[in-house]
Amino acid sequence: MAVGDISVPSTIHAIEGIRLSATAAGVRYKDRDDLVVIELAEGTSAAVVTTTNAFCAAPVRILREHFDAAAPRYLVINTGNANAGTGADGRGRAEAVCQALADKTKTAVEAVLPFSTGVIGQPLNSDAIITGLDKALDTLSADSWLAAANGIRTTDTIPKLASEQVDVDGTRYHVTGISKGSGMIRPNMATMLGYVATDANIPADVLQQMLSAVNEQSFNRITVDGDTSTNDCCVLMATGKASDDIIDSPEHPHYQALFDALSRVFVRLAQLIVRDGEGATKFITVKVTGGKTTEECCDVAYAVAHSPLVKTAFFASDANWGRLLAAVGYAGVPELDTEQVNVSLDDVLICQKGGLAPEYVEEQGAAVMSRPEITVHIDLGRGDASDTVYTCDLSYDYVKINADYRS
Amino acid sequence: MAVGDISVPSTIHAIEGIRLSATAAGVRYKDRDDLVVIELAEGTSAAVVTTTNAFCAAPVRILREHFDAAAPRYLVINTGNANAGTGADGRGRAEAVCQALADKTKTAVEAVLPFSTGVIGQPLNSDAIITGLDKALDTLSADSWLAAANGIRTTDTIPKLASEQVDVDGTRYHVTGISKGSGMIRPNMATMLGYVATDANIPADVLQQMLSAVNEQSFNRITVDGDTSTNDCCVLMATGKASDDIIDSPEHPHYQALFDALSRVFVRLAQLIVRDGEGATKFITVKVTGGKTTEECCDVAYAVAHSPLVKTAFFASDANWGRLLAAVGYAGVPELDTEQVNVSLDDVLICQKGGLAPEYVEEQGAAVMSRPEITVHIDLGRGDASDTVYTCDLSYDYVKINADYRS
Repeated sequence: MAVGDISVPSTIHAIEGIRLSATAAGVRYKDRDDLVVIELAEGTSAAVVTTTNAFCAAPVRILREHFDAAAPRYLVINTGNANAGTGADGRGRAEAVCQALADKTKTAVEAVLPFSTGVIGQPLNSDAIITGLDKALDTLSADSWLAAANGIRTTDTIPKLASEQVDVDGTRYHVTGISKGSGMIRPNMATMLGYVATDANIPADVLQQMLSAVNEQSFNRITVDGDTSTNDCCVLMATGKASDDIIDSPEHPHYQALFDALSRVFVRLAQLIVRDGEGATKFITVKVTGGKTTEECCDVAYAVAHSPLVKTAFFASDANWGRLLAAVGYAGVPELDTEQVNVSLDDVLICQKGGLAPEYVEEQGAAVMSRPEITVHIDLGRGDASDTVYTCDLSYDYVKINADYRS
Repeated sequence: MAVGDISVPSTIHAIEGIRLSATAAGVRYKDRDDLVVIELAEGTSAAVVTTTNAFCAAPVRILREHFDAAAPRYLVINTGNANAGTGADGRGRAEAVCQALADKTKTAVEAVLPFSTGVIGQPLNSDAIITGLDKALDTLSADSWLAAANGIRTTDTIPKLASEQVDVDGTRYHVTGISKGSGMIRPNMATMLGYVATDANIPADVLQQMLSAVNEQSFNRITVDGDTSTNDCCVLMATGKASDDIIDSPEHPHYQALFDALSRVFVRLAQLIVRDGEGATKFITVKVTGGKTTEECCDVAYAVAHSPLVKTAFFASDANWGRLLAAVGYAGVPELDTEQVNVSLDDVLICQKGGLAPEYVEEQGAAVMSRPEITVHIDLGRGDASDTVYTCDLSYDYVKINADYRS
């Protein structure tokens, strides 16, 4: 059961130059959309980030090669099978899917990027995917973002969409994106897939910089269980249909407004993954301030966000601040003066100068912990750097979901 | 429910020069032994390792100071309250306990080392401990190792003891130890306490080296949930009562036999903590070979041992080798060639050269996974280094235990 505001945007802006479809190809289950195709109009620029996992899946290796060779025209995404840990056979099957799509659309095979998500280590049912491509191509539509968001779900309980419209100097831009993922989520992406498009006119190199920056604030700042998947990928596309005005550098007058819109969409898509975290009953924002470096703030935030003891305390609505302090203490901050550390839960100061705050009473902590959305604010009291990470609690259902997943 | 062989040794060797007692002082619960005192005969040498957590508890800070100032004569251990995150008040209460024990035994306060374990961030009931000291001192006995092992338990379901006897060149040595801990267990100790004594004659500097080495193989190679506690401590004592022959260097003819006996006791005490891991239903040995360095083997072993997805798969008896590979892949081994990686579960080769082993069939994996004790063997195929870590699975009961702990 996802936590808090998980609503689909009331308006999902189509992005001119992008068409999508979702089809039930029977990759693993019957009668469930499991094949999504995204078509990029000619001239669309694209940027990609992929998992850092050494055991990255066959499609990830292929998409890196293809992306280096040509501008992408088609993205083909299947759920139900990650095609990871599948060796040469897995590579061959992913290549076969790309080749079939290239043949059907008369594009170069390098213009097709493959994505797979689902169970690891099983042979990919590439025949089913190839068979499904005809219908997938026949049903491409600019208005199928919601269908595509549903089509890339695995253990996700909700579709994940975000959409923004922004007017700058008389030009109207749109940004729309979808994501999937609810377990195996951690920095450097996860079983995470994300596809975001804008109709702005942005060259590929600038787009790649924008993607790296917004990714760092969003998908690289979420954790459910600390596992980095073999298949994480995120694609940012810019069709250029909104304007001939090329946003070719951060100094361009439209850049910042577009960056902010992208940032909102990415953070929303990332937070939706945590809100839908496997077994999540609480959405936790871990904000660390007062560090000497962003890096140490991030280390502290992740130590807290990864601690099973902290996460089970949130599940139990137990303001067990000792577990929070213990996690701060082992985060590896060099020469941390614990007597400068303050910790708040929402607006309640619970730990002051490394010890229990004098005014704190358990009822205050209990009141905060009963909320479905909680911000843990840790101030290290040693500098001006800060960072923020989003996570969820650890519940019975996390264990249940992951103990049952393959069956 | 603890896993596998958790038996108490049939013979618990008393260590001449060491007396122990366990008393119900009412620190947190009534009618439950929660105060353990260990007396070291004059002339006993001692070595100590303590937690690396920056938020180390008041007693840990005090014991470091005391240990630097004098040879310990008394260890005083309470359960029920960790006296961590308690600031100046906590320090004062721990000092009061030490002073009371020093007064009653007419020793210097620096010869008293305090230890606390239990809930974090609550005021320590030092009055109850001080009141209990009289009975604790009255009941000291060389034969109370089992009572002491029970007296230091918190969420532990079993007492943890190991005892060895070794004859070298006509001298008979004994090594006996106890430990506690079942959650918040990870490298660099945990909610872990360990007390091991021998009647060998070993100077403090040599003893400290031995402790560091055996600790590295044992308590620093176990993980239950990846949390490092604020209170971990381990003490190694050598009374010298077995012989006047001083084991003053690794070249001494008795050194190796004693080291091996210590190593067996430490590894057993560490493994017992994992066997009794909170909610554990399986005992997992993660052995990594073929690395370029011990450090990278250790990184891989811990990545696997910490992965909630791997741990829930073990709980579900699901040979989900994809999750194992994913964890190996994100362990951060530089330039890992995944096509050199082999993975076995016990005697079943499941992953060969980075992919599914050709001969592997699911029934083999299922047969291994049904066992309560499983060795995961990961060969990185790039060198001669190796390392081993012990862990357990992640079950519903882990969540239950840690969600309920404070109530």
